[in-house]
Amino acid sequence: MEQAPASGAQTLLETLVQAGVTTCFGNPGTSEVHFIHGLDAVPAMRCVLALAENVATGAADGFARMSGATAATLLHCGPGLANGLANLHNARKARTSIVNIVGDQAQFHGYLDPPLASNAEAFAQTVSNWTRRSNSSLTVGADAAAAIAQARFGGGAIATLILPSDVCWGTGGPIAISPPAPPRNVVGEDAIKAARDLLCGSKRTAIILGDDALNERCLRLAHAVGAKSGARVLAHSFIRRVERGGDRLAIGRVPYAVAPARAMFADIEAIVLVGAGRPVFAFAGPDGLSGPEAEGTQFIALGSPGDDVEAALDMLCNRLGAEPEGTNAMPRAAGHREVAKGPITPDAFGQSLAALLPHDAIVVDEGISFGRSVFAATQHAPRHDWLQLTGGAIGCGMPLAIGAAIAAPRRRVITLQADGSGLYSVQALWTQARERLDVTTIVFSNRSYEILFNETRRMGLTPGASAERMFSLDDPAMDWVKLANGFGVEAASAASMEELNDLLASALTRSGPFLIELLLGPRRS
Amino acid sequence: MEQAPASGAQTLLETLVQAGVTTCFGNPGTSEVHFIHGLDAVPAMRCVLALAENVATGAADGFARMSGATAATLLHCGPGLANGLANLHNARKARTSIVNIVGDQAQFHGYLDPPLASNAEAFAQTVSNWTRRSNSSLTVGADAAAAIAQARFGGGAIATLILPSDVCWGTGGPIAISPPAPPRNVVGEDAIKAARDLLCGSKRTAIILGDDALNERCLRLAHAVGAKSGARVLAHSFIRRVERGGDRLAIGRVPYAVAPARAMFADIEAIVLVGAGRPVFAFAGPDGLSGPEAEGTQFIALGSPGDDVEAALDMLCNRLGAEPEGTNAMPRAAGHREVAKGPITPDAFGQSLAALLPHDAIVVDEGISFGRSVFAATQHAPRHDWLQLTGGAIGCGMPLAIGAAIAAPRRRVITLQADGSGLYSVQALWTQARERLDVTTIVFSNRSYEILFNETRRMGLTPGASAERMFSLDDPAMDWVKLANGFGVEAASAASMEELNDLLASALTRSGPFLIELLLGPRRS
Repeated sequence: MEQAPASGAQTLLETLVQAGVTTCFGNPGTSEVHFIHGLDAVPAMRCVLALAENVATGAADGFARMSGATAATLLHCGPGLANGLANLHNARKARTSIVNIVGDQAQFHGYLDPPLASNAEAFAQTVSNWTRRSNSSLTVGADAAAAIAQARFGGGAIATLILPSDVCWGTGGPIAISPPAPPRNVVGEDAIKAARDLLCGSKRTAIILGDDALNERCLRLAHAVGAKSGARVLAHSFIRRVERGGDRLAIGRVPYAVAPARAMFADIEAIVLVGAGRPVFAFAGPDGLSGPEAEGTQFIALGSPGDDVEAALDMLCNRLGAEPEGTNAMPRAAGHREVAKGPITPDAFGQSLAALLPHDAIVVDEGISFGRSVFAATQHAPRHDWLQLTGGAIGCGMPLAIGAAIAAPRRRVITLQADGSGLYSVQALWTQARERLDVTTIVFSNRSYEILFNETRRMGLTPGASAERMFSLDDPAMDWVKLANGFGVEAASAASMEELNDLLASALTRSGPFLIELLLGPRRS
Repeated sequence: MEQAPASGAQTLLETLVQAGVTTCFGNPGTSEVHFIHGLDAVPAMRCVLALAENVATGAADGFARMSGATAATLLHCGPGLANGLANLHNARKARTSIVNIVGDQAQFHGYLDPPLASNAEAFAQTVSNWTRRSNSSLTVGADAAAAIAQARFGGGAIATLILPSDVCWGTGGPIAISPPAPPRNVVGEDAIKAARDLLCGSKRTAIILGDDALNERCLRLAHAVGAKSGARVLAHSFIRRVERGGDRLAIGRVPYAVAPARAMFADIEAIVLVGAGRPVFAFAGPDGLSGPEAEGTQFIALGSPGDDVEAALDMLCNRLGAEPEGTNAMPRAAGHREVAKGPITPDAFGQSLAALLPHDAIVVDEGISFGRSVFAATQHAPRHDWLQLTGGAIGCGMPLAIGAAIAAPRRRVITLQADGSGLYSVQALWTQARERLDVTTIVFSNRSYEILFNETRRMGLTPGASAERMFSLDDPAMDWVKLANGFGVEAASAASMEELNDLLASALTRSGPFLIELLLGPRRS
């Protein structure tokens, strides 16, 4: 029989590594020093340091999205976990696979209420599908294996293991083997037949694809269904990852804004949800509208999120006699290869980005107001993956880019970063510099919470002086070049499309991170 | 009968203002645009914008500590609250008085699971003494009044009111009157007699003062008790606010570090806890030690935290015949008036700070490793208040300074800021610039999590290459001058005591914020 590791920390680390969980994003504290010490004995585990926990959790999300593997985080007690909850909320909505390891007080110590004593379970349960406190270094291997299994259920979930420090320093127990991820749920024949009947009927239909249906093959299947049935095919609004560009088939999204979303569904009578929830506005206003569909729209589900929707789409094609390998009537990508000149607009930006995007890039989109239409403007770019904010908790962009770059080290990562959102987790730039990641960040610097001006007006309100001041970031104006430099990232600003084009072209060929502050001028009221 | 306000948001704001809650630190989102719009109609409410929620919550804590009033926060949905939980954890440990207002989805909308839908109550309950969801614009006044009352119980507590956006935009109901804060619990005669008997007995005793016993008068009372009984008088380790310097009586703290804390109590047989919990180490190690007291030490409590310990100390003086107005044998402050020269050390820094500190300043101490001994080195400075990290959740320093400066606009605020901790909430600098606050920040730039090196060694471990890399912040080295400039705060670095002295002297006389990066050189292993 193999000898057990020397400490609980090593048992835990070896259990993670044996299950293929070999990258951990963390910010440690005193209760984790034995875990960190264990890293010296388990070199197969790569631990990436973040200056703030929301950077670590967002990076884990990005890593899981691009690798398809389970990411780990290391966080310091309840409050350290608290600092990372917002991006775990986003990861939960994205259904990515993350095991959080949260250090805590030694079990004999916590009852005295030291400063960092807290209800770590309560913090964890706000975003976790599964939470457990490990009670012994002899069983921590089994606890870790259970966490990994839970994090892999249904394609991806958030599992949190609370790790008292005495469990780390105690004598190591056996390394445990995590069971293989269970297969995804099969979508039943009845659901496939119902979708087929609806799509063959007389109603005007749309198909909304959830995150599990946005890989290249699913898009081909879905477009074949659309071509055969006349259904409009769309992705949902808040995309975990979509494979697009090059010779892939293009896909639009359900618009974020209420008016265009309503217009898009005005003539639709029935919607097939392919592993997707119902379309829903990010927020409702006094008009009482919650979603874009016309009144009386019929919804049917082809699988729930996490189900095997690829197989379901395959069968649906079969039942419909649709031909996924045919290309007629399918929206192939082809378009601009020239950068844009003239005024800085979202479309001009999108055109330049599409023209300059390297093959097989990864685009992380937290562009918010300015960036909203860049998605459409880049569908003709060379092939790439596109990752978005999934849960509305802003501050995910630059952290996601860290994880994506570590998961795909030979691919260029481009982050489209709204300035207000980027400031929540600006500390991410330091980790990008430290890990020498090939990440190019473009900050849309409009120096305001533009979305809040827009939403205020949508509600029929006029911002007065107090409201104006709460939405404006121009007093003082942030200087993103200095901020980036302060964190060790080279940077420059662009005040015209010409400057942007030059900077972006050179940034995309250089090693390591670079930030471009795109100066959008004062807010346009 | 007075007309009710036009909207639920205005009812809420008017209720807060009528109860004297007139300062709100916030970071709004779409669900709060009606609240923000209400600010235009209720100018008595000052709303201070933060770029990240942990800045808002830390500022609220600082405001409450210095004003003695209840502070409000405005946060955006569960994840926005999540971003502010760490400093609310600190505020809860400090027992400060805060009402959190957390926007949420309109009630008819949340069931569709929009991106920011979350269990806001679950997030809130991790740090709140009281949580309620307001269900109607007609009753939101009463809800707010209840929140304020709860936040004022026992001297200070955290109350969280969840505010669906439809409650904000609905027709306003009546403004509610918050009941006066209930009087603090009286410490009973038995407890006073027990303390007296113990202190008059033959045991060697110490008195540990909690946060409610650290104002000028309580310190005088406690020192009189000490002088009369021979008891050693100390403050607990994690101080909300202590009034010190000038002609006030000095007070030492229970040391943070294990060895000096153990030494301090080695000969003590009994400890009187004055509104304080038992002394406890921030973390326990494999040595199994949880607190500094010798084995068999007797503890007795003179009141619990939040009780009327000032009255209890008064009565204890009376029972002992101690004379608080007498000054014999009491540790008066008097000392250095010259800045230090030579090598940069904690003591040299403390000497310079004491020499340069303006009268009636406020010192915010998140100095961690380098800063630990500055407290002792400044007890002879001119009179000032000293605020500390109370709950171990780092990232409180610069946010606390915002709130302190807004609560006490004519007083100079000096923040002693460890670099690693400061990076969690570096966004605070922007609000300092925006609000033109007279805050001078000194960053102790050792470019490492020095405390983790120290704790690792205390545990008997030697950091290897992996551990070393997780504790080091020097690759790349942060440039705090650029970071501060990027947020609109002027800054300079000092590499010698002479440079520091010059910079500090000039910074302390200027208007608005200034940051000094004190370069401590490479880590000393």
